[in-house]
Amino acid sequence: MDMIHMEPIGVVRNGVTEAVDEGWGEVTSEIVLRPDLAGIVDGMEGFSHVLVVTWLHETPAVPEVKRRPRGRNDMPVLGLLAQRARHRPNPIGITACEVVAVAPDRLTVRGLDAIDGTPVLDLKPYFPAFDRREAMVPEWVDRLMSGYFAK
Amino acid sequence: MDMIHMEPIGVVRNGVTEAVDEGWGEVTSEIVLRPDLAGIVDGMEGFSHVLVVTWLHETPAVPEVKRRPRGRNDMPVLGLLAQRARHRPNPIGITACEVVAVAPDRLTVRGLDAIDGTPVLDLKPYFPAFDRREAMVPEWVDRLMSGYFAK
Repeated sequence: MDMIHMEPIGVVRNGVTEAVDEGWGEVTSEIVLRPDLAGIVDGMEGFSHVLVVTWLHETPAVPEVKRRPRGRNDMPVLGLLAQRARHRPNPIGITACEVVAVAPDRLTVRGLDAIDGTPVLDLKPYFPAFDRREAMVPEWVDRLMSGYFAK
Repeated sequence: MDMIHMEPIGVVRNGVTEAVDEGWGEVTSEIVLRPDLAGIVDGMEGFSHVLVVTWLHETPAVPEVKRRPRGRNDMPVLGLLAQRARHRPNPIGITACEVVAVAPDRLTVRGLDAIDGTPVLDLKPYFPAFDRREAMVPEWVDRLMSGYFAK
């Protein structure tokens, strides 16, 4: 299929140098915007949460289309796109973060699971009508997720 | 900033030829995967919902960084990224859809607000622990959103 080309809107600054699998809940990050986009987040202060869309640029490629989540033997073999790991054909991250502060040149958020220098592709205010769902998950999810946001 | 290049993982097939602002709730869409990715959504049948990440390729460019939502005079002037309109620097769409059916070569979903032929960049199973938030929005959102998913 035709390749798609996009320029990041900004970059993550948080001093975090290593991607980890858990404990992102208390990390505060600044998303520093491109200078030509100054003012483009004005109004975000009315929202409690924002979806931060990142390009997880240091994610290693995965050659197979299926694997066990985190390689754990107690997890089923699943297609990569039926998982939330960063290892996927396009390593796009989507994280629902708390809005901490808004300025013309940057947005400050809490809970972003991305290292310093990560390119940001988009920001979307969290709309419950769009984003909040009563959703069912398979039993392996609860086993996998214990501890993700804890310190 | 350095440009980012990605290949879509698949394409939307739903027979819808025109982007509209409302009424997407009952649209059923097939996301037809690239042949080299066969099997990559295996396991999605355990989830009730999926985040579909699209590239809204026919979205016209917007030269300004601020505008009123849908150009309505009863809406405040806001940065483009403090809105959910498709008009944004990178026209990425994120929609929480119902999972209808899973096959090796395609995923069928309900409620995707994207026209036929739209490239799909990523699919993520909806994890309430990541995606479901008690979130506050400004008062203009409720006025704007009445009718979006209705027929």
